[in-house]
Amino acid sequence: MKKGKLFGVGVGPGDPELMTLKSVRVIEESSVIAVPGEAPENSVAYRIALRACPCLLKKETVALPMPMTKKEEVLKESHRQGAEILSGFLDQGKQVSFLTLGDPSIYSTYLYVKKILEGRGYDTEMVSGIPSFCAAAAALNVSLSEQAESLHIIPASYPIEEALKLPGTKVLMKSGKKLKQVKDQLLAAGSEVKMVENCGMEGERRYFSTREMPDEGSYYSLMIVKD
Amino acid sequence: MKKGKLFGVGVGPGDPELMTLKSVRVIEESSVIAVPGEAPENSVAYRIALRACPCLLKKETVALPMPMTKKEEVLKESHRQGAEILSGFLDQGKQVSFLTLGDPSIYSTYLYVKKILEGRGYDTEMVSGIPSFCAAAAALNVSLSEQAESLHIIPASYPIEEALKLPGTKVLMKSGKKLKQVKDQLLAAGSEVKMVENCGMEGERRYFSTREMPDEGSYYSLMIVKD
Repeated sequence: MKKGKLFGVGVGPGDPELMTLKSVRVIEESSVIAVPGEAPENSVAYRIALRACPCLLKKETVALPMPMTKKEEVLKESHRQGAEILSGFLDQGKQVSFLTLGDPSIYSTYLYVKKILEGRGYDTEMVSGIPSFCAAAAALNVSLSEQAESLHIIPASYPIEEALKLPGTKVLMKSGKKLKQVKDQLLAAGSEVKMVENCGMEGERRYFSTREMPDEGSYYSLMIVKD
Repeated sequence: MKKGKLFGVGVGPGDPELMTLKSVRVIEESSVIAVPGEAPENSVAYRIALRACPCLLKKETVALPMPMTKKEEVLKESHRQGAEILSGFLDQGKQVSFLTLGDPSIYSTYLYVKKILEGRGYDTEMVSGIPSFCAAAAALNVSLSEQAESLHIIPASYPIEEALKLPGTKVLMKSGKKLKQVKDQLLAAGSEVKMVENCGMEGERRYFSTREMPDEGSYYSLMIVKD
């Protein structure tokens, strides 16, 4: 039997209208919908997709437990188990859509599962989604880069002192728990900062200066720092 | 009369299926479609949008001449003239969609015209589009950033020696005419490089190593450089 194909489908950052025509089509054509998490209906990516594709309710769904940990062994084991579950569907010739927030090529869990399955000879494809930083720029109605400016996407784990020295625009992602520390460094550097929390989701908030920003952010806090 | 609203609408990098549901809706609801260039039908952004929104044929279209020059005075004057033309439509209460390739917040002409019109009190909004680098990553089926990696978007005008020292993934954009020079530097640095030309458009080509790459690229050449 011909094996099924695995799609890593970006559903964008929150607003279901920011899904692409291709994402909607690929989801509609898939027999199985996979999401990271304990239960599909609790997954943010699933809830976004459901609002644009009500057909999800009639599809086979599978949740792949992906613990939020930095322990490499635990992570690897969860990716291996996720790949194992998906290979079962692919071996039955079923097309699988693995939903990811934002774009699948940027910090997604899909990437790890895809690597394992590619190594085993399965066919995979990524379907681009709007990255959170583009939607944040739109929510704040500001540019990310103009003319000769470069644009740096920096996860919270990156040493921020170094990041702030880079020329161009800096997007600081996932600084949730470290927000107070990041805020103090931005105030000291005198940077021009804007922030969005939960962009395009319930509880979206926008901040137009460092002083306005709260001391604790969420996983979905994103800052745009200009020179 | 209530003034019209200006939308900067990202149509994505080439494949019309990568347009978002929102881009399509906003275009359909607009009375006027503006594109940079000499004639709408020659504009790449217009041709992408037309394939997803055949309704474009029935709409008022306007081309805003935007010379490809680095002469600041010439550029400023063209932005001023573009804003002037659009304000005429907005004053008539018409909703205008200004189409941009990729995402409007990243290196788009829209940003300059928007600034002028905002300064004159007009209401504006950006509608996110898939950036070219996300679509290039999907075309090459590679990640842009994983775990703690940062991601740097670098225009060709940036000193590339400096860029290549940055930790994480580097996306080199618009190095078309400088491609030979960039290629030599990448070979010297021994970087792992992949490239896409005309991603999602006619004449798309993919290269999986520096040696395969041609000596001259186009405006739509994009490289992904890994550590």
